[in-house]
Amino acid sequence: MDLKQYVTTVENWPKEGISFKDITTIMDNGPAYKYATDQIVEYAKEVGAEIIVGPEARGFIIGCPVAYALEIGFAPVRKPGKLPREVISADYGLEYGTDTLTMHKDAVKPGQKVLICDDLLATGGTVEATVRLIEQLGGEVVGAAFLIELEELKGRQKISQVPIKALIKY
Amino acid sequence: MDLKQYVTTVENWPKEGISFKDITTIMDNGPAYKYATDQIVEYAKEVGAEIIVGPEARGFIIGCPVAYALEIGFAPVRKPGKLPREVISADYGLEYGTDTLTMHKDAVKPGQKVLICDDLLATGGTVEATVRLIEQLGGEVVGAAFLIELEELKGRQKISQVPIKALIKY
Repeated sequence: MDLKQYVTTVENWPKEGISFKDITTIMDNGPAYKYATDQIVEYAKEVGAEIIVGPEARGFIIGCPVAYALEIGFAPVRKPGKLPREVISADYGLEYGTDTLTMHKDAVKPGQKVLICDDLLATGGTVEATVRLIEQLGGEVVGAAFLIELEELKGRQKISQVPIKALIKY
Repeated sequence: MDLKQYVTTVENWPKEGISFKDITTIMDNGPAYKYATDQIVEYAKEVGAEIIVGPEARGFIIGCPVAYALEIGFAPVRKPGKLPREVISADYGLEYGTDTLTMHKDAVKPGQKVLICDDLLATGGTVEATVRLIEQLGGEVVGAAFLIELEELKGRQKISQVPIKALIKY
């Protein structure tokens, strides 16, 4: 299946000059969503993932069915103030300023093999901060899987130690 | 499996006097997450769901694996400014003020049978607004499935025309 045909490119969103890759047209198509997820499930098996970690909110759409298919857990990475128990946090740079991600302190166990799932690898800021959170908890990041990679933004250079799987490349 | 034992009650969060039901301790437990999802998958089959709709962000955690298991689509309900194409929107009341939810105009097709999935049925504001969005698109809401229902908040009265499944009740 050529997944690219299910991606909708939205010009000038969220701002002028950006060609946004809209994945909702993969998700609302049952066979396309199943096919994409199954590719990541296979990758998760290859790398021996024991838990899936995904950043809110589109990382949940990619990672949760992978966790379900493998009967393993899913741990969310969220913006500050969203997780109710004790968290650790990591800052990362945006075009202007910084943002912060958090995880529950007990979300990943020391030594646990973690696959990060998200929709898009762009500049890599979110995934790099997610790697730091997981490593701070003692987890081992065995891979990062994305639906889409925007290669010219060179996000994979920010996590050069982590094996990367991307189903669609632009 | 008694799912209740995997829920963590966090007292006085997000504010004094609230006993928050934290579902992350179901999600990060592979067998518990699988078991909970499979209950909702069975319900989705019973009501003949053709697409799953879930409000961000915890609705994605519940609804996405259900869509995957049935090889049907998933359509997200999001806060304003998050969906890149043309949307419809619905307001709903909060304790103080109002909030707004949006869906892509093409997310649900006329006549399509929709199961709404979310983590928690509390006062019912989110699900009631979600029902209005789906009906505005011509979809038929055949049910709403929740991990948890807080019965004393009487949320089901807000959507009395919709069949409801809740796995855990307080």
